[in-house]
Amino acid sequence: MTMARRIVAEGLGTLLLLVVVVGSGVMGARLAGGNDAIALLGNTLSTGAGLVVLIHVFGPISGAHFNPAVTLVAVLRRELGAADALGYGAAQVIGAVLGVWLAHAMFAEPVLQVSAHVRGGWGQGLAELVATFGLIGTILAVSKHRGEFTPVAVGLYITSAYWFTASTSFANPAVTLARGLTDTFAGIAPASIPLFIAGQLAGALIALAVFGWLLAEDPA
Amino acid sequence: MTMARRIVAEGLGTLLLLVVVVGSGVMGARLAGGNDAIALLGNTLSTGAGLVVLIHVFGPISGAHFNPAVTLVAVLRRELGAADALGYGAAQVIGAVLGVWLAHAMFAEPVLQVSAHVRGGWGQGLAELVATFGLIGTILAVSKHRGEFTPVAVGLYITSAYWFTASTSFANPAVTLARGLTDTFAGIAPASIPLFIAGQLAGALIALAVFGWLLAEDPA
Amino acid sequence: MTMARRIVAEGLGTLLLLVVVVGSGVMGARLAGGNDAIALLGNTLSTGAGLVVLIHVFGPISGAHFNPAVTLVAVLRRELGAADALGYGAAQVIGAVLGVWLAHAMFAEPVLQVSAHVRGGWGQGLAELVATFGLIGTILAVSKHRGEFTPVAVGLYITSAYWFTASTSFANPAVTLARGLTDTFAGIAPASIPLFIAGQLAGALIALAVFGWLLAEDPA
Amino acid sequence: MTMARRIVAEGLGTLLLLVVVVGSGVMGARLAGGNDAIALLGNTLSTGAGLVVLIHVFGPISGAHFNPAVTLVAVLRRELGAADALGYGAAQVIGAVLGVWLAHAMFAEPVLQVSAHVRGGWGQGLAELVATFGLIGTILAVSKHRGEFTPVAVGLYITSAYWFTASTSFANPAVTLARGLTDTFAGIAPASIPLFIAGQLAGALIALAVFGWLLAEDPA
Repeated sequence: MTMARRIVAEGLGTLLLLVVVVGSGVMGARLAGGNDAIALLGNTLSTGAGLVVLIHVFGPISGAHFNPAVTLVAVLRRELGAADALGYGAAQVIGAVLGVWLAHAMFAEPVLQVSAHVRGGWGQGLAELVATFGLIGTILAVSKHRGEFTPVAVGLYITSAYWFTASTSFANPAVTLARGLTDTFAGIAPASIPLFIAGQLAGALIALAVFGWLLAEDPA
Repeated sequence: MTMARRIVAEGLGTLLLLVVVVGSGVMGARLAGGNDAIALLGNTLSTGAGLVVLIHVFGPISGAHFNPAVTLVAVLRRELGAADALGYGAAQVIGAVLGVWLAHAMFAEPVLQVSAHVRGGWGQGLAELVATFGLIGTILAVSKHRGEFTPVAVGLYITSAYWFTASTSFANPAVTLARGLTDTFAGIAPASIPLFIAGQLAGALIALAVFGWLLAEDPA
Repeated sequence: MTMARRIVAEGLGTLLLLVVVVGSGVMGARLAGGNDAIALLGNTLSTGAGLVVLIHVFGPISGAHFNPAVTLVAVLRRELGAADALGYGAAQVIGAVLGVWLAHAMFAEPVLQVSAHVRGGWGQGLAELVATFGLIGTILAVSKHRGEFTPVAVGLYITSAYWFTASTSFANPAVTLARGLTDTFAGIAPASIPLFIAGQLAGALIALAVFGWLLAEDPA
Repeated sequence: MTMARRIVAEGLGTLLLLVVVVGSGVMGARLAGGNDAIALLGNTLSTGAGLVVLIHVFGPISGAHFNPAVTLVAVLRRELGAADALGYGAAQVIGAVLGVWLAHAMFAEPVLQVSAHVRGGWGQGLAELVATFGLIGTILAVSKHRGEFTPVAVGLYITSAYWFTASTSFANPAVTLARGLTDTFAGIAPASIPLFIAGQLAGALIALAVFGWLLAEDPA
């Protein structure tokens, strides 16, 4: 694949991921009559199913990272060069922001917003650490042992993690930044973003170490 | 396959698709006690699961388009002749209308209805553009890279899109026309139909261009 | 497989199917606070997922019919002898009744009950015809084209049909008879049973004819 | 795989399983506004999806038992030595307890708790017998006939069993012990634990006998 196609795939895929996350959050909150568990059920179903599709669509082109934490791990494992990684990261952030704005336009919301939803406390940071640890571990283990199942595994992982983490599992710095720009169900106040991204990076690095050891070939 | 079998497969498959969409909408609305998110959860689960089954059942016979936008893309990609496409389109529209009427009969509703549910505003048209762009992109990319997963990918895509688009993702002109003939949960007022179909055709053509480029083989 | 193992597999599988259907109905109704759509969501998720598992477990032993309508179609297609079919049918009915009673025992309900839930009107009969037509069509088409997907297709079909049919898709004479013996969420008054079974048999025979033609090999 | 890796995989996998079960229970209960069926829907979706992922991640390393009842059956079938089994069991119990505490920390709950949720009555014991019988039967039958589907089958089984058993299907002595240490949605009062574990062991042994016979090769 040419680099142009790979960059466009990362950007368009991340854009559509944010349309899914933010759009289904708006739909859920509008229809659920104030019951956030019902809104989260719709949000979860849409995000999990959508991720499986998006990774199948864009995976053969760019690898379907959609996530700077995943791209960082690929660089540290020497599977991607630093220059390519910068392109991937820029495409992910730009795509994510455009996706939020497209979701707003569809739902006739003001395009430009800033979230007022504070998600603070160290439990939230720990939750993002756990969420990203699990996401990176899932990708490393399943791509090694049964690669064709990885897209479904990632979709199921996020389906599960929306409920088992206290933070509803952002697990993605580009997604976190962009969700700062929506004051709807999926939003996060800018003040809470550094804690989330710190937790995500810590979780990714711990997963790299733990699963690096767990998945190593035994010495002969 | 003979042409007769293929036409019957498109008609019967689209009929059953409308039974699923309209029937599960009625069931959801009747049971949900006024909470539209709960009704939409049932409607979504039924439509997504049903689509996976219908495409597996009829795909090996006719390709399981069930959708004039999909048939149009096949013609533009020279995978289907114009005469066959006309037969497909007629079968889809007739099947869709009969499916709505069969759903009404099962639920003891008046068979002949016209929807009064206005779904207007340019956000709705944009939503149909996004919904159909994603559907066609999913079909083009997944059939190229991993064809046996296409039926599941389409079912998961619609599961997701029911929630992430502001219009609940009709993404199908035959389905849209037929849903004008039901004044139940899934209905759409005839006055809103042109906007929906315009959005769908625009989305299909944009997907054809974008994914034509993204999926092209690199020059040697 | 010896005949004893096949008969036990049909009986035990149908027993467990009824434990799933009746048990998850009781759980849903007890927890849902009067909202039948929420109860049906739990009932649907449990039945669809459970069916996929049960067909995987018992399919390699007996074919996992669990359903006299499926066994009848197998006889008419000369895939099963009449004597074997009688054994299958008896095991299915006995297993189904024992399954209802086991569900009652687990939930501390009186073991012996008769349903007072009338499910009448010709719409309900039509719904059972449609439900069984779709079930048999799914089995015939998917086993021909992609046999290893049949268990998942049947589970997804029932997941969908619980919502798109007005009767919540019994689609099985043994299950219908046994559900006459529970006055819980899944019950059916004995007076409504003949209508349901008539619809089921009509749907099975129509599916046999329609899909017999649709799936026939073209003449050379 | 070295034994150290296998023990760590069992411990870490069981830890994460308890994070999923307890964490999604807390999330469901906090958001559901008092409707336990809605809370259980979220808990079920998260646990079923999470199990499929965890078994894919750790299965190639340790077999992904996460459950002393599964380990016991492996010993009785002479697939695992007694010394290894003790290591597995210890890792499972320690991992399970740590998982509960990690879930508490994420959700800013007191780390040390004891459940006050009495789950008594012989129907509950029978439910655990049925739940574990089905779990062991699923594992034995599906690993024999279609091993690569086993992780999905186990996830679907638990998805189903959360609803069809009166006890919401613990089906795992290590999970049961650890859930005694949380006074949240998933908790179980210590006084109820012996009944649950007795039912689980009985169900496992009955499944071993029944499926040993059902899955035996016919004599030549």
